[in-house]
Amino acid sequence: MKGDPRDVRDRLDEARKAVDAELERLLAGDESRLFEAMRYAVVGRGKRFRPLLLLAAGGAFGTPREALLPYACAIELIHNYSLVHDDLPSMDNDDFRRGKPSCHKAFGEGLAVLAGDGLLSLAFEVIAGAPSPRGNGERKEQAFLEIAAAAGVRGMIKGQWMDISLSRGEADGNVYTDLVGRKTGALITASVKAGALLAGAPPGGVEAAGAYGESVGLAFQLRDDLADSGTTGSPSGLDAVTIFGRDGARARLDECLKKALAALDRGNVDSAELRCLAGMLAPEPGD
Amino acid sequence: MKGDPRDVRDRLDEARKAVDAELERLLAGDESRLFEAMRYAVVGRGKRFRPLLLLAAGGAFGTPREALLPYACAIELIHNYSLVHDDLPSMDNDDFRRGKPSCHKAFGEGLAVLAGDGLLSLAFEVIAGAPSPRGNGERKEQAFLEIAAAAGVRGMIKGQWMDISLSRGEADGNVYTDLVGRKTGALITASVKAGALLAGAPPGGVEAAGAYGESVGLAFQLRDDLADSGTTGSPSGLDAVTIFGRDGARARLDECLKKALAALDRGNVDSAELRCLAGMLAPEPGD
Repeated sequence: MKGDPRDVRDRLDEARKAVDAELERLLAGDESRLFEAMRYAVVGRGKRFRPLLLLAAGGAFGTPREALLPYACAIELIHNYSLVHDDLPSMDNDDFRRGKPSCHKAFGEGLAVLAGDGLLSLAFEVIAGAPSPRGNGERKEQAFLEIAAAAGVRGMIKGQWMDISLSRGEADGNVYTDLVGRKTGALITASVKAGALLAGAPPGGVEAAGAYGESVGLAFQLRDDLADSGTTGSPSGLDAVTIFGRDGARARLDECLKKALAALDRGNVDSAELRCLAGMLAPEPGD
Repeated sequence: MKGDPRDVRDRLDEARKAVDAELERLLAGDESRLFEAMRYAVVGRGKRFRPLLLLAAGGAFGTPREALLPYACAIELIHNYSLVHDDLPSMDNDDFRRGKPSCHKAFGEGLAVLAGDGLLSLAFEVIAGAPSPRGNGERKEQAFLEIAAAAGVRGMIKGQWMDISLSRGEADGNVYTDLVGRKTGALITASVKAGALLAGAPPGGVEAAGAYGESVGLAFQLRDDLADSGTTGSPSGLDAVTIFGRDGARARLDECLKKALAALDRGNVDSAELRCLAGMLAPEPGD
């Protein structure tokens, strides 16, 4: 049964394994320390939340996983490049990432800068070389633009800039929402929209995917801030618990998840996977 | 007259001004330090050699400058991102660039990493949003792939990795040619090929553009090494004068320029601009 929660989780696990395998393939075949550093930053451990969103959104509009896999992996490469660069001593200065030394700790700073550059470049090379899933070049171009803009100087880059440059006194709810919308939300939203676009979704479906993505993007960061509460790694100290309080952050998270599901209903997007991925962000009893 | 050398130089100057104006436009409208750092790294001073190559190659196949300008600027953004990151203390550690403090000297290391990331992302955003010059989406996709691969982990990134990781003992003529072909040659070749592709050149024309680009790319570095002789900034110490001697480097430069022009003749590419741009790399009497 399509809606059975265990089936959905199994399908998501299967998709995650396909993403992992494709990422390994994209980074194989070169034994240099440069590629070793890129593999170190990408392979294993990741939740692959963004690629799963892209695959689920595309699947909701009838496009099979194989055709979407390069785009899903490109987004994960962009996400991982941003982690490598954000961890650098001159940025957030994080020594650990996913339970192991961060890339610059393991490979040195120069190689970490270069490995990050390599992951970002490879992402666009993968997109450039990927066939249009439904032979629709225009839709591929639109998805490419969504992804590039999300990764760009008015999206993720601007968000990271705000995060390293804002002082604690400037942290309020509006600034938080703007910063998170760029730093975290932009690429998450682009993942869902790109999936819908590549699958040839009608305008209402693309709009619904975008609205779902925006709510899920904010929810993702609220969930992260609730889990990390008291140990914020954000340079600006801009975290939801500090700004909204624990109850306020939980209430906002609940609201975002409701809005995400409402967007799917409104756009008639029937996807157990997208519902399940949003559900994974629900606050835990301890939050 | 099309072949008059003064006319050609005037036309190239005019094209350079158009590139400069478009670069300023692309980086305008945001007063943050992030954009200030990006403008600092890009605006003014550059020779704009790569964008001029793209415009000249496209012009040789009848496509007007306006339609090619976004692509030409994207390549210049990629070139400038690479300079910002290569200058970082953890890479080549250069304090000066184009006669002024390098980006990290003026804005700090974190912002220089981020500004470089921003320029690379913006380049792909510009390509994504640019119309196909002749309404030919397939040709745009091919040009996009040429540019992404040149910027990528088997092109520029690999070249920079070789440059920072090779020790002086490993420097021989073959390694030099391979390294320069990636670090300098790949983006120069992609500039010429992308121009030809976007302009809808026939296969022979695209092939000639690629061959011209490869020769010009190597000539560019030989010329640079001859001019900088004795003051090499290359971390590996891999420069043409050390490896081939001054006379050997000059002879190789002459040969590259001859091959570049021969490629144009072979492909029936009639372009005073491409001839003039190659001619600018001819050794000076003092070299």
